[in-house]
Amino acid sequence: MGPGDQEFLAGKTIEVIKMADAVVGYKSYVKLIENLVENKKVVSSGMKQEQKRAEKAIELANEGKNVVVVSSGDPGIYGMAGLLLELTPPNLEVEIIPGITAASAAASILGAPLINDFAVVSLSDLLTPWELINKRLNAAGQGDFAIVLYNPRSQGRREQIEWACEILLKYKDPKTPVGIVRNAKRGETKAVITTLGKMLQEEIDMLTTVIIGNSDTRIINGKMVTARGYK
Amino acid sequence: MGPGDQEFLAGKTIEVIKMADAVVGYKSYVKLIENLVENKKVVSSGMKQEQKRAEKAIELANEGKNVVVVSSGDPGIYGMAGLLLELTPPNLEVEIIPGITAASAAASILGAPLINDFAVVSLSDLLTPWELINKRLNAAGQGDFAIVLYNPRSQGRREQIEWACEILLKYKDPKTPVGIVRNAKRGETKAVITTLGKMLQEEIDMLTTVIIGNSDTRIINGKMVTARGYK
Repeated sequence: MGPGDQEFLAGKTIEVIKMADAVVGYKSYVKLIENLVENKKVVSSGMKQEQKRAEKAIELANEGKNVVVVSSGDPGIYGMAGLLLELTPPNLEVEIIPGITAASAAASILGAPLINDFAVVSLSDLLTPWELINKRLNAAGQGDFAIVLYNPRSQGRREQIEWACEILLKYKDPKTPVGIVRNAKRGETKAVITTLGKMLQEEIDMLTTVIIGNSDTRIINGKMVTARGYK
Repeated sequence: MGPGDQEFLAGKTIEVIKMADAVVGYKSYVKLIENLVENKKVVSSGMKQEQKRAEKAIELANEGKNVVVVSSGDPGIYGMAGLLLELTPPNLEVEIIPGITAASAAASILGAPLINDFAVVSLSDLLTPWELINKRLNAAGQGDFAIVLYNPRSQGRREQIEWACEILLKYKDPKTPVGIVRNAKRGETKAVITTLGKMLQEEIDMLTTVIIGNSDTRIINGKMVTARGYK
């Protein structure tokens, strides 16, 4: 579905939603496309119900229905595409429609921080053990990647963003530009540009995407820009 | 502009192109939106003319024109956004419209290889020295990231993909799934799923995006899927 605002839906996405008999999704995401799902069977539920939603979608498809499962951002980047492909029996056909992922939406608001090599790391340790996230943050720091942090903090997970900041400060200058974007291209966007040394002073929650620069990232006319070696 | 097929253009992208007085871009990209730029001033040129195109766009904007600079994929990921922000004087306003990047488009064709943490690395050493690309490939391998390779090979750069494969084989099993997608969602898409040990037997060129799995990537019903720890 892309970031959330309907002007960032691709034509193809609108087309498949309109053709669907049933739409299945996380309730906050289904709400973003309410006007497109009138007169359709809609199955929506809360967080951590991903597996049940996928099973429900498969059940409806097995009844012969044309089913759309919606994810915000890109369904293939921390979205529903993987779980659906894991669970769907071979008699059913799955088509993945890519979207504008949160990294792209947040980057476009900040400037051009991802114009060169970057790494994307989710700080949620619900499905990935922290030891592995820790290893990846260290690797991304060593490689001087620009780094996008998804799911930086939630009500129940407060400290991961602090640990991540501490790890990255081993490799990156405290003055490295950091962009913090809340609700990127979804209603009321809020963006702050700060530094790695000061980022923990800012408001960060589960609707936030955090982008940390590499050693070539600068602030130019108020925008966060990673130089790519032109000139 | 997204991957290329117009059904993957966002509504916002179509709107700003239609509102523009002038459209500036790489000639192959402008060709993909020919029907949208009729009756507009169009400035298109070849590869390695990026800086001249940006300067031309700024010149037209300084004349008071509303100018759109197009990039395929996401303009903020190896696209034109960074260079434009570096060169544009503060009196002009720049808005970046995000798009579906090639990693998302290629992943959606292969299955869901990027459903967990991943790194994006361009193998082009025109603007980034090979020592840095080499360091990033090693870091991405150490971190067990799924890895997206942009610009894997061109007419003039043949060996970088071979070096990259050799580096990644230090960290990843030769049986690691690899997806190779040519022209992802742009006309005639061609996709192959192979392994890290055998990937160099496939056709790889500058229109190709290569995605290398992490240690949780499997082939399920012919699709490349990175497991994310559900169940």
